[in-house]
Amino acid sequence: MSVTAARGFVANGLSCNIKASGAADLALVASESGAAYVAAGTFTTNKAAAAPVQVSRAHLQTSGGRAGAVILNSGCANAATGAAGLAAARQTCAALGARLGLDPSHVLVCSTGLIGDQLPLDRLLSGLDDLVEGRRASRDGAAAAARAIMTTDTHEKEVVVEADGFVVGAMAKGAGMIAPNMATMLAVLTTDAACVAEELAAALRGAVAVTFNELTVDGCTSTNDTVLALSSGLGARPAPGALGEAMTEVCGALAMALAEDAEGTTRVARIIVRGASSNEDARRAARRVAESNLVKTSLYGADPYWGRILSELGSSGADFELERAEIAYGGIVACRGGAEAAHDRSEAAAHLSGRVVEITCDLGLGVGEAAVLTCDLGHGYIDENMRTS
Amino acid sequence: MSVTAARGFVANGLSCNIKASGAADLALVASESGAAYVAAGTFTTNKAAAAPVQVSRAHLQTSGGRAGAVILNSGCANAATGAAGLAAARQTCAALGARLGLDPSHVLVCSTGLIGDQLPLDRLLSGLDDLVEGRRASRDGAAAAARAIMTTDTHEKEVVVEADGFVVGAMAKGAGMIAPNMATMLAVLTTDAACVAEELAAALRGAVAVTFNELTVDGCTSTNDTVLALSSGLGARPAPGALGEAMTEVCGALAMALAEDAEGTTRVARIIVRGASSNEDARRAARRVAESNLVKTSLYGADPYWGRILSELGSSGADFELERAEIAYGGIVACRGGAEAAHDRSEAAAHLSGRVVEITCDLGLGVGEAAVLTCDLGHGYIDENMRTS
Repeated sequence: MSVTAARGFVANGLSCNIKASGAADLALVASESGAAYVAAGTFTTNKAAAAPVQVSRAHLQTSGGRAGAVILNSGCANAATGAAGLAAARQTCAALGARLGLDPSHVLVCSTGLIGDQLPLDRLLSGLDDLVEGRRASRDGAAAAARAIMTTDTHEKEVVVEADGFVVGAMAKGAGMIAPNMATMLAVLTTDAACVAEELAAALRGAVAVTFNELTVDGCTSTNDTVLALSSGLGARPAPGALGEAMTEVCGALAMALAEDAEGTTRVARIIVRGASSNEDARRAARRVAESNLVKTSLYGADPYWGRILSELGSSGADFELERAEIAYGGIVACRGGAEAAHDRSEAAAHLSGRVVEITCDLGLGVGEAAVLTCDLGHGYIDENMRTS
Repeated sequence: MSVTAARGFVANGLSCNIKASGAADLALVASESGAAYVAAGTFTTNKAAAAPVQVSRAHLQTSGGRAGAVILNSGCANAATGAAGLAAARQTCAALGARLGLDPSHVLVCSTGLIGDQLPLDRLLSGLDDLVEGRRASRDGAAAAARAIMTTDTHEKEVVVEADGFVVGAMAKGAGMIAPNMATMLAVLTTDAACVAEELAAALRGAVAVTFNELTVDGCTSTNDTVLALSSGLGARPAPGALGEAMTEVCGALAMALAEDAEGTTRVARIIVRGASSNEDARRAARRVAESNLVKTSLYGADPYWGRILSELGSSGADFELERAEIAYGGIVACRGGAEAAHDRSEAAAHLSGRVVEITCDLGLGVGEAAVLTCDLGHGYIDENMRTS
């Protein structure tokens, strides 16, 4: 169900031949009634933001947080495409708006794929009639949309959370180039929670901060990252905090799905840093460990070489005293007091050979805590990324 | 010749069985006369600094910049080894000093290898007599020392520069884990330039800043990085700036040798950023590009996917305006005005398939410039780093 699980939403997905393979590449999530709903978005911090990011950001600003439809394409990022790319993104919104009876500023647009290629607008426009015609509130409509936004993803990512009186559903894509503060990942959340635009935006910001923004696959922050949320308001008014909680649950599940399906990954690791001088220090240290190629390559080899983790903690910029540092693999303490702790190395290696592993670093300095999700770096990542054409 | 090229230096290298393979693992560079010379050092910024780093740093401070010998071992980093490791590094200096008639504070010590293992001090000490006995001012003595500091290096790194009235020679090791601000790299420079400790230290700092510190292999900053310089003063007094120039030439050649021999690398790239708002911004942008796994994987595939470079420039934190950005591969402009420039993609790919390539990014904003040396990320890096035992 995902994006059609909440009341008031329809979706569809199909191929309009942007992808040479003929795989689905055009998706729609829209208001069932044709009315504009409450909407919010968070976007990449990359200063080379793609045309659709610029357009969607502007539309949400102009409309004061209202949107009736989201159109998404895969197979072309429409990034680094100059004035022509910007015009293409705007025309996409106008053409869809005309078909749905929506003002163009009530249409949001997302793209994902290779950077630098011009969007084949004619192909996209040629798919619009079928896309609109086939929109539906079924599980199947949502699945078609989720499938059409995939790039190197190996499967659709859909999540639904039923809360007290309202539902949050979502789809996402993203397989590489994922880092805190957004990466080539797109996500659309829909809900029927009764709320105003500011409430939806605050709940989304909070959810993204502790989920997608604490996920790092390769430290790269893409030109196209976008997370959008639309609310039909057809359900109950959430209890204080309940909307944020449900959206955090949805985004957390999607972030884990993205990590597990990251390009060439065999293993996901949650890096937890405790005992830091501050939460910010903890986050800095956790990210440094999570983005270290040496740590990530050790993860690939299921090798409990804690010395590399210690080295990254020490060079992270966070407050650090070697004599206080402790490192554990899934609860097996391998380093204590900045030196090796008596432990069964094969037990640590066994933990590391799992599909989802946990590394806990205690800096022994304060109460700062953070967790970052990362994945291993292996041959698959190289094969997937070494050539694009 | 390297470290024995300048007048007044002897060197040696041998195996004392720290390495299970029986390969050479213990090296000495010493004053020929037995006197303490003028000395300087730069060390890792990692707060998890290894025992030998702590000891050498303290010795240079105590002695006010004087040293008569440097002892280096490979096969064990003596890092994250607690009080026992610190005692082992101190005992190493004391034992060598006793044999050479030097105060322990006039002995410097370096280690490289795996983090977390205790230094097998008994083995190291058992090699000292032969190490001291065999020290010699010949080319062969220098080569033996350069060989004994290798870890995953595939060959010795030695450089000599003859300047006006003085000579600078050096050896280095380092194959992975190399990043700006020092990495698992050790280097010892010797010179006969007549200078005081402050002059030697300033020349070394300046040389390291624009060479080793602008090299990044995998963004990791090691626990053990050390660059040491000793001057016998037996040559001429350098003209103003001449010592710094010669040391920069030596360190630049060694940095290139390290990049070319980096773990699993097939290609070295010089990333040049021009037109930045400031030199600092240029450096930030160049490092971001140089450390991007996506850019490095493209380098491995000799794939001129400039969009990834643009994306890294945009997310580097440096001032950036998409419409002004230009990217060129070896002079072939692939992106201009933030979008694709008409160019022959196969020509760009041909440039990228070389052993040493150049990527120039012009931000079009100011006069800030920087260059960073990096290398590709391929299957070799994964194979070399995925398991340590």
